[in-house]
Formats: sequence, C-alpha cells, structure tokens
Amino acid sequence: MSASPSPSNSERPAVIAVDAMGGDDAPEVVVRGALAAVSGDREIVLVGDSMRIESLLGNRVGGPGIRVVNATQVIGMDESPSAALDKKKDSSLLVAARLVKQGDAQALVSAGNTGALMAGSLLTMGRMTGIRRPAIAVTWPTYDAPVDYVLVLDCGANAESKPEYLAQFGHMGSVYMERVMGRPTPRVGLLNIGGEAGKGGTLVNHAYALLEKAGLNFVGNVEPTGMMRGEVDVVVTDGFVGNMILKTGESVAEMIMNTIKAGVARSLRAKIGAWLMKPVFRDLKRKVDHSEYGGALLLGLRGPVVKAHGRSNEVAIANAIKVASRAVSQGVIAHIGQSIQQAAAREGGADAASA
Amino acid sequence: MSASPSPSNSERPAVIAVDAMGGDDAPEVVVRGALAAVSGDREIVLVGDSMRIESLLGNRVGGPGIRVVNATQVIGMDESPSAALDKKKDSSLLVAARLVKQGDAQALVSAGNTGALMAGSLLTMGRMTGIRRPAIAVTWPTYDAPVDYVLVLDCGANAESKPEYLAQFGHMGSVYMERVMGRPTPRVGLLNIGGEAGKGGTLVNHAYALLEKAGLNFVGNVEPTGMMRGEVDVVVTDGFVGNMILKTGESVAEMIMNTIKAGVARSLRAKIGAWLMKPVFRDLKRKVDHSEYGGALLLGLRGPVVKAHGRSNEVAIANAIKVASRAVSQGVIAHIGQSIQQAAAREGGADAASA
Repeated sequence: MSASPSPSNSERPAVIAVDAMGGDDAPEVVVRGALAAVSGDREIVLVGDSMRIESLLGNRVGGPGIRVVNATQVIGMDESPSAALDKKKDSSLLVAARLVKQGDAQALVSAGNTGALMAGSLLTMGRMTGIRRPAIAVTWPTYDAPVDYVLVLDCGANAESKPEYLAQFGHMGSVYMERVMGRPTPRVGLLNIGGEAGKGGTLVNHAYALLEKAGLNFVGNVEPTGMMRGEVDVVVTDGFVGNMILKTGESVAEMIMNTIKAGVARSLRAKIGAWLMKPVFRDLKRKVDHSEYGGALLLGLRGPVVKAHGRSNEVAIANAIKVASRAVSQGVIAHIGQSIQQAAAREGGADAASA
Repeated sequence: MSASPSPSNSERPAVIAVDAMGGDDAPEVVVRGALAAVSGDREIVLVGDSMRIESLLGNRVGGPGIRVVNATQVIGMDESPSAALDKKKDSSLLVAARLVKQGDAQALVSAGNTGALMAGSLLTMGRMTGIRRPAIAVTWPTYDAPVDYVLVLDCGANAESKPEYLAQFGHMGSVYMERVMGRPTPRVGLLNIGGEAGKGGTLVNHAYALLEKAGLNFVGNVEPTGMMRGEVDVVVTDGFVGNMILKTGESVAEMIMNTIKAGVARSLRAKIGAWLMKPVFRDLKRKVDHSEYGGALLLGLRGPVVKAHGRSNEVAIANAIKVASRAVSQGVIAHIGQSIQQAAAREGGADAASA
C-alpha cells in the first residue's frame, strides 16, 4: 500500500489514480483493465469499494504495481454532476482526484459520469499554473489520411471562450500530441468555416492572430472536411463548437449504423450479406470507435485526467491508463507550462522590439 | 416571354427564376428538372445560354409554364464568389436574382456555386423588411423519430450572430416548416450543449430568453442527439455552429460510406455481401441524401432562394423548384413578416404592461 517506486526501476514510476467504480460495467471491467495495464514503470491505485475490488483482484491483491484505496460512495452515470459532487465527498471519483491534488498520484482515469469527472477534477485538483481554462481533448478518426486520428480541443469544458484560451488549447494539444502520441512538431489548425485567413467571426480571428505568433506549427484554418482528412494533428476550437461537432459526429455515425442494422434485421438476404461483410463492418467499427486511442482527456489541470468511455471494455480501460501513464512519464504538464511561458516571453520580446 | 399569369388559372401563378447554368451537370439536368416541375400553378423562367437551353427544351420551347431569359456569363462552381460577382454582371445567377428584385419572379433556384448564390442574392435582392440577417436553412435527416427530417438554421449565412438574429431565425424556420412543409405549430429548439435552461454561453442564453417570448412553439434547448431523434421541427443555431455541424455530419457520413466501399473493393466475399445488402444501402443513401427534400434555403430575402446540391439530379432540381413554388404560393415571406411583427407587438405590449 505504498506509493514508493518499485525497486526494480531506477526512475520513480507514474502513479495513476483510477476511479474503479466509474463506467457501465464497473468495477469488473475497470479492475480487469487495470490488471492488463500493470507494468514496471507505473503504479495503479484503484479507488472504490475495496472489498469488491479486492475480491476481483483475487491473488493479485498486494501484488506489484497495483493497490487499492477505499471510497464508500459512487456517483452514478446519470446523476446531476453538481448535486452529486456536493453530496458525495467520499465518492470514488473525488477520493481519486484528491490523491492527485495531494501529490499521491499524478494522473486520474475514470470511465464514469463525464460532467462529474470534469467538474470534480477541476474543483479538486485545480488548474496548472499559467493555464486560464482547462480543455477537453478528444481523438477524432480520419479517413484516407496521412494520420489515423487528430486531436480536437476544447470539446466542451468551456461554454464560452476567449481568444487567449484558444491559443492555450493550441499549446496543450501540441505538447500532448508530440510527447504522448509521438507526433513530431504537430500541425495545429484552427477550426473555421473556411480555409482562408479572415474567415469566421471575432473569436476565431483573434485566436488566429494569437496562434500565428505562439511558436507552434500553426498551419491556419481547417474545416471539418480537412480535419477528417488529417490535414492537421491538432484542431483548436471553442468548447461550444467542439462539443457540437463531437455530438453531431457521434449521432450521425450512430444513425448510419442503426439504419444498416434495422435494414439487415428486416430481410434474410440482407442478413446473409451482412454476415459476408462482417470483416468490413468490424474495421469500420474500429475506426469509428474512439476507445482505441484511450478516451478523452482533460488538459490544463495539475495532472492529466483521462476519461474513458462509459461503455469501455477492459482494453479501452487499459489504454486509458497507459495514456495517463505516458502523459506523466513524458512530463506533459511541465512541457505545457514551458510552451506557454516561451510564447509569453516571445510576445513580450516582440512587444519590447516594437515599442 | 411574359410574366403574366397563364389564362387557365384564376390565381396568379408563382414565377420561379431558375439559374439554368448552375450545377455540375448544367444546363442538361436543370432543364430536365424544370420540365419535370412544370405545372399549371407555376411558371418557370430558365436563365442562361438561351441557345443551349432552347435546344434542350426542343419542342417544349414556348410551351406553357416555361420560358427562357438569356444570360451570357456563367459563374463556375469553384470560382471565388466575390470576384465572380464583381466581374460577371450578366451571369445566369445575377440575371435570375435581378428578376426577383424587379418583381418579375418571386423566388430563385440554383444548383450553382453556394457562396456566389448566397452573396449574390443577398446583394441583388436585399433583405425583406424587418429581417436583420438572412439565414441558410438545411433539412437534416432523423433516425427512429416521429418526423423524417428537421430544419436547421443558420447553416452559415452569418459568421457571427446576435441573440436577436437567432430569435428571427426561429420565426423564419417556423413559418417555413408550417407553410411549406405542412408541419402544424412546429416545435422550435435552440441548439445547445445541454438540455436544461441556462446551459451554454451568453449568445444562446440571451437567444433562449427571446425565443421564450417570441410566440413560437419554443420547446427549449436541444442537443444534436435530440435533433437527430426529431425532438423538434426547427433547430435554431448561429451560422458558425450550424455550418460546422453540417460539414461535420457530411464528412462523417462520407467517411463511413467510403470506408465501407473501400472494404468491399478489397474482398470478393464482401463484394457478394454488399450486393445482397444493396436494398439496405439504397435506403441508407436516400436517408443521408438531402436532395430528396429540396435542398438548402436562403430565408430572409425579398423572395425565397433555394439552393439545390451541385450534384443534383433532375428529381432534386424539380423538388427544389416545387419547394420554391410552394414557398411563394403559401406566402412565406409575408407570413414571416407577420410573425416577427406580432412578436414585436407582444413584446411592446408586455413592456407597456410591466411599465
């Protein structure tokens, strides 16, 4: 039950707090996912009903790389976030977030209630120094593109944004894609209604100007079509728009899949056809399914927060833990701070030069 | 070559100006679509290269319900709208728009360059009295819903909006859906990041307050998921967000369709499966394809403007003409004016009562 590094490792391992009670199939799937993610360079802290978790861990209780912290309450998937956070101070989510705040863990993973996770970790952990607003970053699949997916942020942490926030989202996304996802000098694009500079309203135009001098690999405006063709690695947008395109994309994909399913259910001929096409549909599902890439992220807090999908299977949970772990070991928080400081210094220098 | 009513009709027929040169397969497809839409209660004016149009019309030249107006220039699908509108004063698009401005036609239909159509008709025809900003309205397919489609506006006529514009979009969409699409007391929803009142930023919150007292059947906020389940008939949003969700929806649908096609092309087994599933894919294509409902609309000008898809076939062109014709015969412009006046009077009355 200690957070000290495992003796086999010379470096201090990343400690990842995992909300074991969050998600549709918690704690079973979460515990299995955590076991699948055990490795020498990370320590996983499962937070929740310790009796249940330990019985699921079986003979792995007390084993290397995994430990349990008890929490007596659970926030339900459909509970109102504000009410739940108010009442359930000993919920697995808040106990896990407190571990990060206290420095006993460096990142948080949950497949639970998204709103509660976002609000709870912001309130408990607090923003990292220099960041004005956190952002929800989501991986988005591409088609016929040089890259498999792009990162879109903000997807809804903020209902209203200022240009400065968007510029910071550019820094956060760029550092994350470079350090965690291994994309060298990520191309950063600003989501807009047209490709040319000057398109869109005041917010995007001011954000464009800030991104141009941010010291990032800013490639200008990008439209949803270009985003899905992988013309950029990082798509910067305000939380309202990001949330709307994310939900629209999910709803359209769901509509198409359900329309196909309903059509297949109505005819034997189509049923046989669907069986023959099974490998095609499996590949498609994999492309559309975000879980492969480790879920959504909340960036800009004192530690990275990874939100796995509520319907996550154990592979998705394990991926989410690995992503969080890599974000810690790669020093994402420190690098974001550095990137923003450098931009501020550059701007200060430019101001001084032009003065 | 006269715009006077056909003698067989006691009521003055709607006169629809059609840009015969706009669209990927113009003028052939446009002329065929126009011929399919000929009826006693409308007159179609085909605008463009009169020699070519008349040769396509064949023995229908000079026949009832259809006539030709010459225009010597064509705006290409990929031309920059502002430059094209500047140079090509005798383009089929601008000549057709001028017919509406001068009262020789009451509505405009084009399958050509969207940006040029929107800018050109706004500049030429002008806004209707009382309307602060026009809006692009697009029909959006639903799934497993009480209605086949909903109307979303604004999908990009304005890059930046004020709450008052959004309230007017509610009036325009409601009148259109009731008068042209036959939906009694259409349910109007405000696109937002959550269902509850108070969600979202300043713009949507102020728009919410205005829509509540607009005298419409305003049902509150709606998310993309609810929109696609047909929880409302009219979705009000600002042009930036509307444009982004529209392009995202189209791109996601395209990605899924192309992923399926590519998978099928790679395997004989899947090819046979796809052949067996043909009826399912045909139904799906019909659902995803907007052309069935008559294209996108520009509302708020002196006459309705219908934008058919650039790839429209003759059925889609005929539908677009019928929609425009119905908008005229149902007096959509007058009814929108009335709806907005009544709301203003109600608000004035409420102000007086509360004073």
